[in-house]
Formats: sequence, C-alpha cells, structure tokens
Amino acid sequence: MSKGLPKRHEDFSGWYTQVVNRAGLADYGPVKGTMVIKPYGFQLWDNIKESFDKMIKATGHVNAYFPLFIPKSFLAKEAEHVEGFAKECAVVTHTRLKSDDIQGIVVDPESKLEEEIIVRPTSETIIWSMYKKWIQSYRDLPVLINQWANVVRWEMRTRLFLRTSEFLWQEGHTAHATAEEAQEETLDILELYRQLSEDYLAVPVFTGIKTESEKFAGADKTYCIEAMMGDKRALQAGTSHNLGQNFAKAFNVTFQTKDNKEEMVWATSWGVSTRLVGAVILTHGDEKGLRLPPRIAPIQVVIVPISKNDTQAMEIKNYIEPIISELEENNIRIYQDWADRSPGYKFNEWEMKGVPLRIEVGPRDIDNANIVVVRRDSNEKTILSNKNAVNQIINLLEEIQNGLFDQAKKFRDENTHTVSSYDELKQIILEGGFVRCGWDGTDETEAKVKEETKATIRCIPMDENPNELLCVYSGKPAKHEVIYAKAY
Amino acid sequence: MSKGLPKRHEDFSGWYTQVVNRAGLADYGPVKGTMVIKPYGFQLWDNIKESFDKMIKATGHVNAYFPLFIPKSFLAKEAEHVEGFAKECAVVTHTRLKSDDIQGIVVDPESKLEEEIIVRPTSETIIWSMYKKWIQSYRDLPVLINQWANVVRWEMRTRLFLRTSEFLWQEGHTAHATAEEAQEETLDILELYRQLSEDYLAVPVFTGIKTESEKFAGADKTYCIEAMMGDKRALQAGTSHNLGQNFAKAFNVTFQTKDNKEEMVWATSWGVSTRLVGAVILTHGDEKGLRLPPRIAPIQVVIVPISKNDTQAMEIKNYIEPIISELEENNIRIYQDWADRSPGYKFNEWEMKGVPLRIEVGPRDIDNANIVVVRRDSNEKTILSNKNAVNQIINLLEEIQNGLFDQAKKFRDENTHTVSSYDELKQIILEGGFVRCGWDGTDETEAKVKEETKATIRCIPMDENPNELLCVYSGKPAKHEVIYAKAY
Repeated sequence: MSKGLPKRHEDFSGWYTQVVNRAGLADYGPVKGTMVIKPYGFQLWDNIKESFDKMIKATGHVNAYFPLFIPKSFLAKEAEHVEGFAKECAVVTHTRLKSDDIQGIVVDPESKLEEEIIVRPTSETIIWSMYKKWIQSYRDLPVLINQWANVVRWEMRTRLFLRTSEFLWQEGHTAHATAEEAQEETLDILELYRQLSEDYLAVPVFTGIKTESEKFAGADKTYCIEAMMGDKRALQAGTSHNLGQNFAKAFNVTFQTKDNKEEMVWATSWGVSTRLVGAVILTHGDEKGLRLPPRIAPIQVVIVPISKNDTQAMEIKNYIEPIISELEENNIRIYQDWADRSPGYKFNEWEMKGVPLRIEVGPRDIDNANIVVVRRDSNEKTILSNKNAVNQIINLLEEIQNGLFDQAKKFRDENTHTVSSYDELKQIILEGGFVRCGWDGTDETEAKVKEETKATIRCIPMDENPNELLCVYSGKPAKHEVIYAKAY
Repeated sequence: MSKGLPKRHEDFSGWYTQVVNRAGLADYGPVKGTMVIKPYGFQLWDNIKESFDKMIKATGHVNAYFPLFIPKSFLAKEAEHVEGFAKECAVVTHTRLKSDDIQGIVVDPESKLEEEIIVRPTSETIIWSMYKKWIQSYRDLPVLINQWANVVRWEMRTRLFLRTSEFLWQEGHTAHATAEEAQEETLDILELYRQLSEDYLAVPVFTGIKTESEKFAGADKTYCIEAMMGDKRALQAGTSHNLGQNFAKAFNVTFQTKDNKEEMVWATSWGVSTRLVGAVILTHGDEKGLRLPPRIAPIQVVIVPISKNDTQAMEIKNYIEPIISELEENNIRIYQDWADRSPGYKFNEWEMKGVPLRIEVGPRDIDNANIVVVRRDSNEKTILSNKNAVNQIINLLEEIQNGLFDQAKKFRDENTHTVSSYDELKQIILEGGFVRCGWDGTDETEAKVKEETKATIRCIPMDENPNELLCVYSGKPAKHEVIYAKAY
C-alpha cells in the first residue's frame, strides 16, 4: 500500500498529497478548491471538535447558529474588515434556475436579487447585527457564544485541509462590558488553543501576538498559536482576536452600565478550523504515512488476526473477546480487521492510516497466552501477557501521546534559532527553521525581510525579551523579539 | 413573562411565533427567511442531533462532509431532481467585491464565474459524483454515509424552524449492490425516524409512503413520518427515499459484481432537519409556552431558590448541594437560577422555556427536610423528602417523557377519523383533523381533493388495508387507504 509514497524528506508536498489520499482523509470536490472530508478524516476532525467543544463549554461558552448568508451592505460596515475579505467572497446574485430550449438549464435572470448576498467568510458582521438586538444592559453581558460552521473564502491556490475554498471551523464571538474583560477572554482562549494543540494534537506551539500587518481585518490585536511542520515551515494553527469596539461601533451596539451610562460593547472573536487536521499530518507523519495522537485518533487500537483457516479465526475471536470487552469498557476505540487480505497488506494500510497501536494475534500467541503489540510511533514490538494486557495498552497509548509531542517539540526546538545578524537569519530561512531575533517594530523592516527571504513575522512570542536586542535588519534597538519563518 | 402570549386555541400561529421568541429559541437573520438559532434552541437541536447520531452509528453508518457548492451542470444531470429544486436555488455567480468611488462596495464584474455554482439544496448530485470515484467493486459496497450540514432552499413564505431559506439537517446517502438491500435500508431508516420522533421527541407519527405527486424529486419511492400538530394539521417530520438507480445512472456509477459483471449501484437518501424543533413546539406547547420532553430538554431540572436574604441563600446552597451532586452523577441536566429576580418571574420564565421539572427550595423546606417539585406537563406539585429525592426525580422525568407522548397520541388518535364519504372528509378537514379513507390511486382524485379542501394525501400508511374500501371522492374501488390532512 505504501508503494510509491514519495519520500517525505525529498518531496514533502507530494508526500502530503499522497498521505491525505491514501489514508482516506479527504478528496477535492468538483468546484475548484472545495474539499470532501471522507469518513476517516471526518472522524479525526470530529474528535478534535469534541475535545475543544468540551473545553469551551467548561469555561461558560454556549453554541448557537447564525446564517450562512450575509447582506453585502453588512460586510461593508467595518472598513478594514471588508477590505480584508473583498477579494475572496462567494457572491449569491440569483435564486432560480429555468429551462432554456437551446442552453438547457440556465440561471433565471428574473430572479436577480436586489442586494447581493455574501456567503460568510467569517461571521462578525452578521453576529454583531444580532447582538445589536440582544444586548441592551450590563445584565446581558458577557455574551459567550460559539458556532461550529462552514465558511467560504475563495482561494486561488488550494491544498486539502490547509487552504480550501470552503472549510469547517468554530468561531467564537463574545461581547463584554469592559476592555479588560475582552482582553482576558482573548488570552483565555489563546491558552485553550495551546492546550488543544499540545495536549490533544501533540503539536507544540508558540503563543504570541501578530504584527499590525498580519492581524485579522477588523481586530485591534490578533493572538495566535504557531506550530512548526515537518518541513520546518510555520503553520498558523489558531487565532484569537481582541476586536476592541470596532464591530460595536460598526453596528452601534451599546449597553446601559450599572450606573446608567450608555457605553459601546467590547468584543473578541476566535477560531480554529479543519486546518488543524493538516497540522497533525504535517507534524507527525512519516515515511509510512500518518501517525495519529491517540487522544484524537478515530481508531486507537487495530486488531489484526493472523489466521490460516476458519478454525483458527474462530479460536482467535474467542481468545481476544475478553480483551476487546475490557478495552471497550475503558472507552478505547478499537477496530478488528477481519477483511480477506494478507496480514502484510493490513499492516501497511493501518500504518498509512496512523493507528497508534496494532495488536497481532495468531495461533502461537494463543498457545503462549500472549498478544503482540506494535507501536506506530516507534515500530516497537512488545509481547504482552493477555492477563494484564489492557492496562499496558492504556499506558502505551499514553506513552505514544506524550512521545509524539516530545518528538515534535525536540524537532521544533532544534530548528528554532536565536540569531543576531541578518546573514544568519537568511541562512536559516534558506535551510529551513524558525528564527528568533530582534525587530525594530517598523512595517518597512517586516516588508523588506519578507521580500528578500519570503519569511514573515509569525508572531511576537508571549515570552519575548527585547531588552538589549537589536533589529537584525536595521541594527536599530529592537522594539520586539519576534519569530521569523516561511509559512503555509 | 407570559403576559400577552396569544391564546393557543385562538391564534395558534401567533402563539407559535411568540413562544419561539420568548423561549429564546430562534430569531430571523437579516437575509430574508434565514434563521438565527439561539443558544437554548441550538442546544435543543443538538440533543436531537446527538440522539439520532448515536442511532445511525449503532447501525453501521459513518459521518463525512461534502462541499456546500455544486456546479450547476451536476444539478441538471437528473431531470426530475433539477425540476424539483430549480425554483429555490441560491446561485453563486461572482467571487470578488471591489470599491467603487460612487457606489461604495460593489461586486467585481471581472470575477464572474464561467459556470454558476448552486448552494446545495440537498446533496445527492455532488455525493454521487464522488461515489463515481469511490465505488468500483462489490467490495466497496455498501457505502453508508451521513452528513450533518446546512442546506439552502430559497423559500418565499418562511417560518422559523418549519420553513426557512437555510436550515440544518442530516442527510444520509447510501449505495448498495442490490435493489432489495436499498429497500431494506430505506425502511430501516424510516423505523429509526419513528423511534427518534416517538421515543425522544415524544411526537407520535404515522409511518407511510408518499404518493407519486408528493415524493422526492429523483426518488423511486419516498417514505415518511407524519405527525399531528396541536392545531390538528400535519407536519412531515422526516423522509426516507429509495432512489433506485436514478442517481447511479445520472452519474454512471457502476460496480463489478462477485461474478465479474458490471451493474448499476442502488441508492437511498434520507433526512431530518431543524424542522423537528418546530414539531416539538407545535405538539407539546401550551398556554404557558414550551413543554419539552426530558430526553431532549437542554435543562431537565431547574432549581429556583426562595430566599429573602444572603444568609438564607447560603443555607439553601448548602442544603441542595448533595442533591445536585447526585443528580449530576446521574447525568441529569440541571440549572440553578440564582438571578436577582422574584420567584414568580422565574417560574414564568422556566415554564415558557418548557423545563420539565422545577425544584423550589426555601427555608421552610430545609426545616422539613423536603424539596418541592413541580411538573411542567401537569403543573402537579409534589413534596419530596430530600432523602430519596433523586430517584424520584429520575422517575418523574421518565413519567413526563411518557406522559407527553401519551397525551399527544391521545390527541392525535381522537382527531384521526375513518370516513366513508366525501362530505365527511370535507367536514373533518374543515374542522381540523386527519382523515383515513379509500383513494382510487389517481392523480386526478388527489388533485381535486386538494383543490376543493386544501387537504393533501399525507401518506399511504404502512398498516393500510384498502380491501373493500371505496375511494371517497370517485366511489371507485380504493387502490390504497390513505391519510388526508392539511399540512404545514
């Protein structure tokens, strides 16, 4: 099955495309840049979704649903916002088809809409048009609403999971009485994103703040989590925006304070998307295909029986039944592969699909009261006594979860360099890696470095220490310590 | 809070609108006919969704996600299908906005698409275009895929939950090797829909088959569940279609059989939507607002403390803490209402929101080691000893679930009449109710009855017995026993 998988270290991009395809994660849809998420890929996304949904509910957020369709005039109400999204908007202009004798099925020109409709690229405008109705008094605040939805951004260059015209995401939209509370929410969510990425996806991230030129269109401040992929490029994996009063002003959303004053509401928004699935593939994948962290893996343990005939198969079934029951009682997600294929074929297939643990059971294992367990992360093979196999399997899954994180973190740290000269920066960007260094805080420097090296400032890390640093480009005193990298 | 709620028996439609609004379920969006599902309404939908998702997963179905956008030419491939949906299609024609000095933000005419895109009204065409790629051999069958998604059907007359331009639903799309297997799947799903409606929503339904004129555009046969609402009108609550080979033919999806023959694939599709929320409101609501079946209620038990001061409040908190813990251990969904409002205000509010059980606790209850429990379905007040309160609460919730179903079924049965003359039919349709009677099986009779009475054939019930019946309209021997009613 892994025959012909491009070498990961030679053709990372070709390797990615093939893994997405062969692991059964996704496919392109017929409309340019749209994505079909296949059952295995969808279950992976659903597990990520469920993990984060629990986290936001535990912190007082609730889910709701806002319409797909936004009147064009709404999008235009916040000047920076519309500028940011104008070039990638799917626009609905008609509402009927009709039969034409010559051309077949055509759009009915008489169904033209008076005002064009935008398919949401993000929902700030439509949500704040509703908050205008829902928020009157300090009693109505905070509003802590999230939605899981599809959004559309018309992209020219697309790639499954990483950049698609339509993608799935969650978008949180909160409203607050004070600037401080909005800022606190922005950072609380950033921390939840860090936890989601590191503790569930096993993807280590830098948390930081975006520069003015990289921030969300309509935000005062954009915070992000930035991860390093297997080719040493950066991936923005989630963003949390402090929107200040920009959308409250655009939609005139005020509230009455406790002491009867009228004030503008403060806002945040934040999102992670199906891009996270791409991050998992690009971080953990290897020459054999996917490697999935157990906490989000659709299948945590696959059982491959090694039998030569029906009698043996029946013996194996009886033998593993109690182990399977006990694993299921422990909420381990298991799949038994009884398909009419060779063990070798199955090993390759489940390795491609990244299942964390494989159990092999044949007649000899029954004789020895054993099972054979193979780790996907390390290929390590262990023989377990069937007596206490379940506890050991649970421990192994935990070890794999931590092992994948440690391995990714080691790789990230080894490829993150502190430099003090522009030459060093250029060299590292050329070879691949993250560069930590001083930046003078000007748009000019940022633009020049981007032009000359293709590296962008991924973020000003939360733990920055710009004291005594100089800007590697201009030599002026650094305003910030930043991370430069080429990015997806 | 219930001040001014229109009388349900006088103005059912006004009552419905007000309940949806005051219970905080939904609101209209800015684009005509779109719906904002508010957190309380969304949680209700989410509980329905989770219930059904478990049922389909337990029967071997998996979730996936297909794109929102369908090329116009795809929709046109199945002739009946496109005819059925042509008049309600949102059409995307452009992909950019731009600034215009005079008009402000306008659609960029240069971004016009070569082929127009349809926002999915349903996904048969896009899914079968993918199945064409995925299905080659009998080994690939059956395909049992479902998706939870938003769809758009441009409606002129809209009503929250019942008929909106965009709605949320699940759509199952399965592919089979034989006609028999597809038919079995169609009926299996119909049975799951019956269970969902009756066992979770407490909404009794007739299961049946649609007439030719009422079936899904592109189906060979459409099965449905039909419920009676509080105004004695019918609501189609879910449909399961046997699509025969219609979509396989449109997209040329064939497979190789075990004995190496090439055959067309057989298909089903089936869906339930946010309309089910409307069914719950219209079936169970009363003069005070919503009444929710406990199994799908976002809040099953609301606790209203009756305290005059902070000391009392603290005593109540301590007193109910162990009861709450125990309820939570039993996965009961609880809300404690400590808001600074009068008990009377809170009673009204939670009655409007349909919470099945209210617990009242005041100083006197503490003295007597009691809690007071009030059922939303019957207003019945019971004093429970705090010792065994939890078990009794669990039993009461079960009683309410069953009680709501029994009450709805009694109402439905009392208003379902077997008639043998057209005059009787007309009289009952005029007064409100379902009519069971003979039908000669012709389109003409169906059309005439609809024209003269506004009643449609809701279904040919699965338990029909047409033997010896005459068509009430034509007097000819009945081909089927059918149910006539006015419908939503």
